[in-house]
Amino acid sequence: MEDLPSLLGRQVKIAGWVHKVRALGGLVFIILRDCTGLCQVVVKGNPDLVKLARSLNMEDVIEVKGIVQRSRSRQFPVEVVAESISVLNRVIGGVPLDVTGAIEADLGTRLRYRVADLKRPRNLAIFRVQAELVDAFRRYLKERRFIEVHTPKIVVYATEGGAELFEVKYFENIAYLAQSPQIYKQMLVIAGFERVFEIGHAYRAEKHSTVRHLNEYVSLDIEMGFIEDENDLINFEEDLIKYMLQSVEENCSRELKLLGAEVTIPDRIPKLRFPEVKEILVEYYNLKEYEDAEDLDTRGEELITKYVQENYGVDMVFVDLFPLSSRPFYTMPYDEVYGRSFDLIFRGLEVSTGSQRIHQYELLRQMMIKKGLNPDDFKYYLEAFKQGAPPHGGFAIGAERMTMKLLGLCNIREASLFPRDRYRLEP
Amino acid sequence: MEDLPSLLGRQVKIAGWVHKVRALGGLVFIILRDCTGLCQVVVKGNPDLVKLARSLNMEDVIEVKGIVQRSRSRQFPVEVVAESISVLNRVIGGVPLDVTGAIEADLGTRLRYRVADLKRPRNLAIFRVQAELVDAFRRYLKERRFIEVHTPKIVVYATEGGAELFEVKYFENIAYLAQSPQIYKQMLVIAGFERVFEIGHAYRAEKHSTVRHLNEYVSLDIEMGFIEDENDLINFEEDLIKYMLQSVEENCSRELKLLGAEVTIPDRIPKLRFPEVKEILVEYYNLKEYEDAEDLDTRGEELITKYVQENYGVDMVFVDLFPLSSRPFYTMPYDEVYGRSFDLIFRGLEVSTGSQRIHQYELLRQMMIKKGLNPDDFKYYLEAFKQGAPPHGGFAIGAERMTMKLLGLCNIREASLFPRDRYRLEP
Repeated sequence: MEDLPSLLGRQVKIAGWVHKVRALGGLVFIILRDCTGLCQVVVKGNPDLVKLARSLNMEDVIEVKGIVQRSRSRQFPVEVVAESISVLNRVIGGVPLDVTGAIEADLGTRLRYRVADLKRPRNLAIFRVQAELVDAFRRYLKERRFIEVHTPKIVVYATEGGAELFEVKYFENIAYLAQSPQIYKQMLVIAGFERVFEIGHAYRAEKHSTVRHLNEYVSLDIEMGFIEDENDLINFEEDLIKYMLQSVEENCSRELKLLGAEVTIPDRIPKLRFPEVKEILVEYYNLKEYEDAEDLDTRGEELITKYVQENYGVDMVFVDLFPLSSRPFYTMPYDEVYGRSFDLIFRGLEVSTGSQRIHQYELLRQMMIKKGLNPDDFKYYLEAFKQGAPPHGGFAIGAERMTMKLLGLCNIREASLFPRDRYRLEP
Repeated sequence: MEDLPSLLGRQVKIAGWVHKVRALGGLVFIILRDCTGLCQVVVKGNPDLVKLARSLNMEDVIEVKGIVQRSRSRQFPVEVVAESISVLNRVIGGVPLDVTGAIEADLGTRLRYRVADLKRPRNLAIFRVQAELVDAFRRYLKERRFIEVHTPKIVVYATEGGAELFEVKYFENIAYLAQSPQIYKQMLVIAGFERVFEIGHAYRAEKHSTVRHLNEYVSLDIEMGFIEDENDLINFEEDLIKYMLQSVEENCSRELKLLGAEVTIPDRIPKLRFPEVKEILVEYYNLKEYEDAEDLDTRGEELITKYVQENYGVDMVFVDLFPLSSRPFYTMPYDEVYGRSFDLIFRGLEVSTGSQRIHQYELLRQMMIKKGLNPDDFKYYLEAFKQGAPPHGGFAIGAERMTMKLLGLCNIREASLFPRDRYRLEP
């Protein structure tokens, strides 16, 4: 549809969905929609064609042959004067949601009728932005000698804590859906791949149903060898995130406009340490309850965003050196209390987590035991650390969370085509 | 490592794994390996440094500072004369497999010790070729206005037949791992995304353990709207496959050489119809048992490859119009017996399957019933077909199968980083 203005005076064949029909006696205007946008079709003169056009319902699928001419409409610079119309498929019984966006349904209804809901141009725009974020992530890494990998999602390991696992019946055995590609991406770095990335699903059987959690989500994962410490990762991620935002700004201007979203690219993302963040919450915001905090909760993430907005003029912040007590066993200790583990908080929400990992066999084993894990359960993983493990680390970005925050969506389900949550397995 | 020749006379810092050590009195040669290849490090003069170098074991992780100079070795045009060596991590108890490739272990042992096995440069090469195949697939589609999507793998639908499903305990419910993104990619085409692709895992709980089957594999899926019939898909896939092969030839010459593999790009991929293929098997190969065949078995796939090799000089063939009896319910009928469904057979193995899909609600419902399925189980999917479904179709390419055949690997497990099969859940 977007090429039409360049085809003025020419015959074209276009196909799509009937977005709207407006009949003014012997003159019918059809607004036709395809994945590139909307265009106006004018039907007049031929009584059979007018009759057919008048019979069309919203979302019928049609193909139109006609001539491109200048239009008087304010919305469309050109229109197609129909010479013939073929109906490729008829709607049966009407579409359950208003596709034009005039009437907004509640999210529950929208997800129930997700196919009709996704027809709204606004939704296609969300997923175009998401695809651009994902593709920018990949382009950036490929240019820096990262190899794309695919690791198993049926696993026997609980890397991020034991309770939140989905069980899979794997022939005679019980397995789980991977909470992250963590142990596999580490093993690949050790195996000499050095720098790997994976775009794949991760699964968390979280029982609560919030606007920030999905039980199945797309994780943008990287892992790299031969780092000094977690600061290498933070600096690398800072540049990667800026590149991803720039790519969206450059390649999705139409989508951003449609969604009323604005991308702001920080010159520099501030880096705070967990003890500093705690101090800000306790002193600056006068919240004594954070004095003994070992992690950041939702309010903490929101307040620290507010703080950097007011003090740095940006809406993103890295928080480094989280307490080891709130981080997984593979986190490289900074000292007795803190780990070389960081979050990226974007507009009040953690969108990414990373760390330097332990690369020393004996230390890793001890940390497992300290966390109440049985090293024998991690036999294959642990033995890799005897076979030449370089200093390494990595991070993961939640694709839906990043999309949600970038576009100002209220619920993460809007950033997932077919979300899986506590009560939703279909469609 | 590959940049070293351009750094002659300069000081460099390189890091990697000790691939080999050769000590000749006070002169030590270290072959160092990183993900870009091998290089030679020379240690001499400084007795402490020589002592350290002599103490190194294979797969120790080290960092070397030194000067690049011309080498007398036939294998390496330049070498690094070490000024300092830091040991980043020591191997504990030796590496269970020979990483240099001098001694070949059997596949079972290799997969048991997969991290050590993947250290062999040959294996990194396999997965570099696979990453290029995947990336070429994506680049080709992106340039043709396909949108990358991510659809749920936890589903309630058995799209490809009911027996081969892995069960997932999803809170109070029983769900399954998706056998393919079939119904979701169709719903997205109907939802106006028009052209989608997905690179993701697919799951088949096949009980038999063969050299061609994995229980978890990477499926390269596309689905597109507004096609005439399956011939549009076949022609599209032909060009896509050629592009993928060309990309590997152009961007993986070093890997192909290392693997001793050759890429041949057919000018044209022959297209046969199932009845013709049957005739070839029955008449040309004189195999009467294929007279009533409703599908192709392994021998059939091998023989038809032999046939096109001898008659067309290529090692790939499309077979169109498979009998409806051997194809899923969503296959568009060609007539009473045959469906608009095709396979791509590459060097004796089906590497891709596709079809035009049924886009008419009532016909789809009937075909479900004919296949013994209950339309009520597909409520959400079916209702999408009432909401404006254009003619559409798609196909899926198995990434591991494609890699296996392209590189002449004997077992599909070699084309999967951490394969999942009947008896293998770890590592």
